[in-house]
Amino acid sequence: MGRWEPDARGRLAKSAMALYAEQGFDRTTVAEIAARAGLTERTFFRHFADKREVLFYGMEMLRDLLMRAVADAPPSATALDAVGAAFAAAGAVLQENPERVRLRDAIVSANAELRERELIKFAALASAVAGALRERGVREPAASLAAETGVAVFKIAFARWVSEPGQADLPGIIRESMRELRGMLTDRLAEAGVQPSARQDGAGIL
Amino acid sequence: MGRWEPDARGRLAKSAMALYAEQGFDRTTVAEIAARAGLTERTFFRHFADKREVLFYGMEMLRDLLMRAVADAPPSATALDAVGAAFAAAGAVLQENPERVRLRDAIVSANAELRERELIKFAALASAVAGALRERGVREPAASLAAETGVAVFKIAFARWVSEPGQADLPGIIRESMRELRGMLTDRLAEAGVQPSARQDGAGIL
Repeated sequence: MGRWEPDARGRLAKSAMALYAEQGFDRTTVAEIAARAGLTERTFFRHFADKREVLFYGMEMLRDLLMRAVADAPPSATALDAVGAAFAAAGAVLQENPERVRLRDAIVSANAELRERELIKFAALASAVAGALRERGVREPAASLAAETGVAVFKIAFARWVSEPGQADLPGIIRESMRELRGMLTDRLAEAGVQPSARQDGAGIL
Repeated sequence: MGRWEPDARGRLAKSAMALYAEQGFDRTTVAEIAARAGLTERTFFRHFADKREVLFYGMEMLRDLLMRAVADAPPSATALDAVGAAFAAAGAVLQENPERVRLRDAIVSANAELRERELIKFAALASAVAGALRERGVREPAASLAAETGVAVFKIAFARWVSEPGQADLPGIIRESMRELRGMLTDRLAEAGVQPSARQDGAGIL
């Protein structure tokens, strides 16, 4: 066996997920993960800092994708348009591999330490998105408000998607949740005498 | 010295905060905190699970206050009205003691472990507020969306308030941030032909 291992990262991640699901995250060792993948512990640590990171390196890819999507939104897009479109794009990538994403979520949800780590990663995601918005010229606190709102909407939409069996459309649920929030925030407009038809038009744009 | 210590909790909290500020959170021991308060370590542990909890028991009081405020909002209040009013009420309580609140924030911000703990407490706060909204008959995902949005707005408003010297009005900043988010979400309405005056009315109600 040479030093170069074809798709070592992917094989290690697959072995780790299978072991976490079978015997729990806490009871799984790096040695077991490497052995099941037919690789060495040394190879594992070339790809991941620790056994937790197997579950979170995807979030770094997600962050990069979100930042790129925010940067690539058309100049006319508002901060929330850009954020909504970015999270919908992230949702589309996630649902390319629904079994893997759902399995990972089940593993993280079952472990307090992992749930806490996920919160930290989400906070970092919000900061990164706010930074990408500032790069577009969005000022504070609008940039942070839009980024935090996007993360809140994404979390709730993702939880709905995970809980629904079958092939629910994650980008669709994200857009629907954003519309729902928009509706909650504009409810008062009806009382202020705005025509329902105008509200509908506004709510449907994102 | 009897077993009953007048305001032991308050004295311990004050000593702890002073020591954390002087020599850092990591380098402070429970023995030092108790000694400065003229109390025993045993007494410390009757009031706090560990030295971190001195910084976070206030968030439990905040959670109770938020849940009560959501429950007490008038029946006609929307989910976001109730959440906005609750966080503004929490802001009013926090700014009763601005030096203490700002000092605590500086201590938490200086330490990664404490910042992470704060994220976890905020997530629990959002869950509690969502629960209080469901008690009012608000359905999911509206309850979670409103709660998460409230927490996001509060975090950003609080960060602004902390960074502003002097006696800025925290409840006012919270209401202003909520209006700002409302404005971001209703921006599209202007393009859909809604009169700016109607938007203004709607935005000012919260």
